[in-house]
Amino acid sequence: LDTSLALQMREAGRAVLDELVELRVATGELAPRTRDVAAIGRSHGVHAEPITLGLKFAGWYAELGRGIERFERELEGVATGKVSGAVGTFAHLPPEVEEKVCERLGLTPEPISTQVIARDRHAGYLGALAILGSSMDRFATEIRHLARTEVGEAEEPFGKKQKGSSAMPHKRNPIVSERISGMARLLRGYSVAGLENIPLWHERDISHSSVERVILPDSTGLVHYMARRLRNVVENLRIFPENAARNLGLSAGLIASQAFLLELVERGLTREEAYELVQSIAMAAREAGRPFLDQALESTELAKELSPDEIRELASPDRHFRHVATIFERVGLG
Amino acid sequence: LDTSLALQMREAGRAVLDELVELRVATGELAPRTRDVAAIGRSHGVHAEPITLGLKFAGWYAELGRGIERFERELEGVATGKVSGAVGTFAHLPPEVEEKVCERLGLTPEPISTQVIARDRHAGYLGALAILGSSMDRFATEIRHLARTEVGEAEEPFGKKQKGSSAMPHKRNPIVSERISGMARLLRGYSVAGLENIPLWHERDISHSSVERVILPDSTGLVHYMARRLRNVVENLRIFPENAARNLGLSAGLIASQAFLLELVERGLTREEAYELVQSIAMAAREAGRPFLDQALESTELAKELSPDEIRELASPDRHFRHVATIFERVGLG
Amino acid sequence: LDTSLALQMREAGRAVLDELVELRVATGELAPRTRDVAAIGRSHGVHAEPITLGLKFAGWYAELGRGIERFERELEGVATGKVSGAVGTFAHLPPEVEEKVCERLGLTPEPISTQVIARDRHAGYLGALAILGSSMDRFATEIRHLARTEVGEAEEPFGKKQKGSSAMPHKRNPIVSERISGMARLLRGYSVAGLENIPLWHERDISHSSVERVILPDSTGLVHYMARRLRNVVENLRIFPENAARNLGLSAGLIASQAFLLELVERGLTREEAYELVQSIAMAAREAGRPFLDQALESTELAKELSPDEIRELASPDRHFRHVATIFERVGLG
Amino acid sequence: LDTSLALQMREAGRAVLDELVELRVATGELAPRTRDVAAIGRSHGVHAEPITLGLKFAGWYAELGRGIERFERELEGVATGKVSGAVGTFAHLPPEVEEKVCERLGLTPEPISTQVIARDRHAGYLGALAILGSSMDRFATEIRHLARTEVGEAEEPFGKKQKGSSAMPHKRNPIVSERISGMARLLRGYSVAGLENIPLWHERDISHSSVERVILPDSTGLVHYMARRLRNVVENLRIFPENAARNLGLSAGLIASQAFLLELVERGLTREEAYELVQSIAMAAREAGRPFLDQALESTELAKELSPDEIRELASPDRHFRHVATIFERVGLG
Repeated sequence: LDTSLALQMREAGRAVLDELVELRVATGELAPRTRDVAAIGRSHGVHAEPITLGLKFAGWYAELGRGIERFERELEGVATGKVSGAVGTFAHLPPEVEEKVCERLGLTPEPISTQVIARDRHAGYLGALAILGSSMDRFATEIRHLARTEVGEAEEPFGKKQKGSSAMPHKRNPIVSERISGMARLLRGYSVAGLENIPLWHERDISHSSVERVILPDSTGLVHYMARRLRNVVENLRIFPENAARNLGLSAGLIASQAFLLELVERGLTREEAYELVQSIAMAAREAGRPFLDQALESTELAKELSPDEIRELASPDRHFRHVATIFERVGLG
Repeated sequence: LDTSLALQMREAGRAVLDELVELRVATGELAPRTRDVAAIGRSHGVHAEPITLGLKFAGWYAELGRGIERFERELEGVATGKVSGAVGTFAHLPPEVEEKVCERLGLTPEPISTQVIARDRHAGYLGALAILGSSMDRFATEIRHLARTEVGEAEEPFGKKQKGSSAMPHKRNPIVSERISGMARLLRGYSVAGLENIPLWHERDISHSSVERVILPDSTGLVHYMARRLRNVVENLRIFPENAARNLGLSAGLIASQAFLLELVERGLTREEAYELVQSIAMAAREAGRPFLDQALESTELAKELSPDEIRELASPDRHFRHVATIFERVGLG
Repeated sequence: LDTSLALQMREAGRAVLDELVELRVATGELAPRTRDVAAIGRSHGVHAEPITLGLKFAGWYAELGRGIERFERELEGVATGKVSGAVGTFAHLPPEVEEKVCERLGLTPEPISTQVIARDRHAGYLGALAILGSSMDRFATEIRHLARTEVGEAEEPFGKKQKGSSAMPHKRNPIVSERISGMARLLRGYSVAGLENIPLWHERDISHSSVERVILPDSTGLVHYMARRLRNVVENLRIFPENAARNLGLSAGLIASQAFLLELVERGLTREEAYELVQSIAMAAREAGRPFLDQALESTELAKELSPDEIRELASPDRHFRHVATIFERVGLG
Repeated sequence: LDTSLALQMREAGRAVLDELVELRVATGELAPRTRDVAAIGRSHGVHAEPITLGLKFAGWYAELGRGIERFERELEGVATGKVSGAVGTFAHLPPEVEEKVCERLGLTPEPISTQVIARDRHAGYLGALAILGSSMDRFATEIRHLARTEVGEAEEPFGKKQKGSSAMPHKRNPIVSERISGMARLLRGYSVAGLENIPLWHERDISHSSVERVILPDSTGLVHYMARRLRNVVENLRIFPENAARNLGLSAGLIASQAFLLELVERGLTREEAYELVQSIAMAAREAGRPFLDQALESTELAKELSPDEIRELASPDRHFRHVATIFERVGLG
């Protein structure tokens, strides 16, 4: 029984693997394509420092690589056969039969088994899927954030003939991404059930069976579906560089505040002093609704430390992108 | 911040690894010591076919090997450093600084990061701990079953001076094993929280932090504690071969029913016929409260197919143990 | 959409409720029927003090009562309708329409909604089901324990014509109970997914939808199935009073040790002294394999405190059952 | 033991209840204060139809009411005492003692117990906390969304002297809300562990104890902390009506598309025709970057169905707020 389960899992797992690899290829194409699209990086949902959109996708590419590697190992772990009898003693058929059967089926014989193959293997498989699903949840959440009306930096593909929301025809809702976020919750729930299946009684109890009948095909099928749908989104993701630029502009020179802070400390101010100075300029610019750079150029206190050219240099976003190419190389997208 | 977390996790993880390896060594010593203690194997909690107690422990040895291997890989995955600035662009310090810092600390530089290292790594680490904890839950559950008053095949170590239950002084309760079963539930819960930490917003949100402050040290500490306590139980586990023999005897020749069934089918009976015949003998023996062997030797129907010597041979438990040595070799305990 | 979901849940929930009530009726019949079947109570899987089998089932009856009450309340909570438009403002249809629609459908109008009814309601429903499932898991685990070959106090119904395990015809495996234990794991996993559905974005995101499509019908269907199958087990549970008596006998007077302990403390011994004395008798009896009573009657130290009649009285199991009828009354089974 | 646990839980639970009630009061004050602050409602993160900010908070008020009610009931459920001996039979002390002890402590006597009080009660308590935590997660997520730089409709309180992010002094990060989102993950994980504690063996095993030592105080303490911190955020939440108005303006008359759609269907167009017409106007306006109203007034096709005044009326946001007062009344904030 476990042997035929192993065969099914190996086949289904390989199909999942194919989809995952294709999804990764898609992110590996999207990332270079958007490598130089300047945008604002956000921490806490709040503007931080400039990045490029491609950096986000290169991060997905790297994360998928790790997830695929973990899944491959766990898939190998469940591709394990067993023909060792009712309690694993080979009482009625010698180990050689198991070896031959497994060899013919392309499975590894389980070195020691009870009536079943130990369930840590399946828990590992389910855990790998739950991590992959949660990674896709991260990517989908990013898309959902970028697709917000106020942000508008990216949008799920949306066929010309396709209708928007039935009630509100103008809406472009990231529903595929939302579905992926939802499905990840199912995978997380399944992974706990998989862990609970490990402590079977003695040489087996059958309590895991009703669970696995749901969680093994569902987890496998969900990740397959999610990878396929997400790939379509990634391949056809609509990117709006002008909106990314507009959003980046919102924080204007303000995003440079850290550079000023570090530079001022370098010049001999205490961290406290530098902080006070930079924050006062940032606050004033914010309240006046004008660029940080203009405010900074007018500050007499700042002028004591930096020349106008130095101020302009520190306020430019380009300096943030010097190492983007290096990062791409580091993840194999150079 | 993530870099110092990585250092802490690497140190703590190595300490856990040491305990796990020692626990595995202990099971690897217990298994050969009990390799030939005949006992009854149970599926569904019900007697099935003979095994030896050592087979149980050899199974633990193999399972721990897999769990340790998984944990080692995931530990390597979190031993990753990052000095790439507020959104991962190295805006203020070049990648070389990161490389040098990581090299000095013995960490791998994260090829691409946001404000943080991606949380699939930590989820993998927590998942590996949850699987190890659930495996220990399985071993602990076995001990709890074997320590049942009616079974009595094994008992947790119990110091001479140590009192039993405060209210019932004669009781020898497997409380360490029960504690281990309980702690595995915590680990399972923590692993879901770890998965939920993956989909952070954009270049990071800090929601994972309050979670990790609990789940990372607790998961690590729990597995460390569980492994250490379980090792003490395994090293000093009291084995009662006479009780194992008594229990095995309860099912007498009945346990041989599968052998009879297979043999009869070999001799040309249909599976239906063989089944009817064997079940009728088993039921009769059970209702009369006498050994299956005696009942079988009196069956005229069975006598048409098998000689008394053949019947005796089929009913002997020894035939179940022919391959035990091979199994031990297969898991590296030969 | 949510309104039609509410209708479906109310209908399905009522069907579940019916099954749960019938299961409770079945336990309420089994309990009195077995009220006076003496048995050994076990803590830690180890013999403790005498009980009667009926007490176990009366406990189930009480627990199901609580679970049903919780489920009824949560079912009412999801029987909530909503016709308030795309963001809950009744922009296109006045609240009166919602009221009329809900009245006609027998639903309560949601006092305030977004595009959807808030998901704390559904999480409550799923949580109630997960608790009911885990309670049934407890009952099923009890049956699985009682059905162990060495224990043999109860057995799932097993038709005469029904075969045992296909490979081992003599086995009577508690497979329905095992299935129930397994299914409870699914319910626990679903309940976390239900909790994760609560924090939807703004006036709704649709991420909950793909999740609910699985967890709402599955959770509902699982509890329905579990209750129905468990009822059949409870109604036809085979009870073996003679085995219960045999097991009770195993611990003979030993189970009385607590009574001796308390009595000796009453008579003026320190808890330490009493403990030492009782434990030494218990250990001696255990090692000699003879009844505790005999050992106790021979103890010269004990004779200083208690007369032979007092010793016999303290060792009798009947004194443990004095309040069983009262307990039955307290749960409404008097 | 369980009785003293019950006492602790009742005390701690009441303290949690107090915090929750105060949090609810705070939302009940914020909601009317912002009742008429016009804003855009969002589904899928994308603009939908107008709402007022107060409607969001009134929804929190209602949801907290349900959560508090559930928690109160479950708290009552765990405020249960037990003095019934080692297996629940009152073998050494009569039920009257239990009644008196419980009465003195203000606890309800558990009608039937084993060595412990059944754990469905505690699972209910933990589930109620997990739902409350997930509701607070929803509120916190809303704040985090509203605090996004591009949205800017609300902000966590931020003392004048308090620094922003240490590295980026201008940032106003919703870190309390993020912490609350994170802590909800812990609560969800704890609730599964609580469910796993239900199926104890026979008259008790002690596996639940190590779990409860963590999850009961932690869950209780977390919700207490979350409620207190969230209340401070709610009481001092900075609201930016001008940003809400700006965002609402972004979708201009476009948000009225549903009204047009419904009106056109009322006038006799098929849903298909109305949909085509409204979508073509919406798309054209979007691509031209001009208000929907202007585009609509120029449409000759639309002019066949509606007069300019009717078009203006349908495009006005005020019509969306007609029933806001009614909704406030329905939740008890009238």
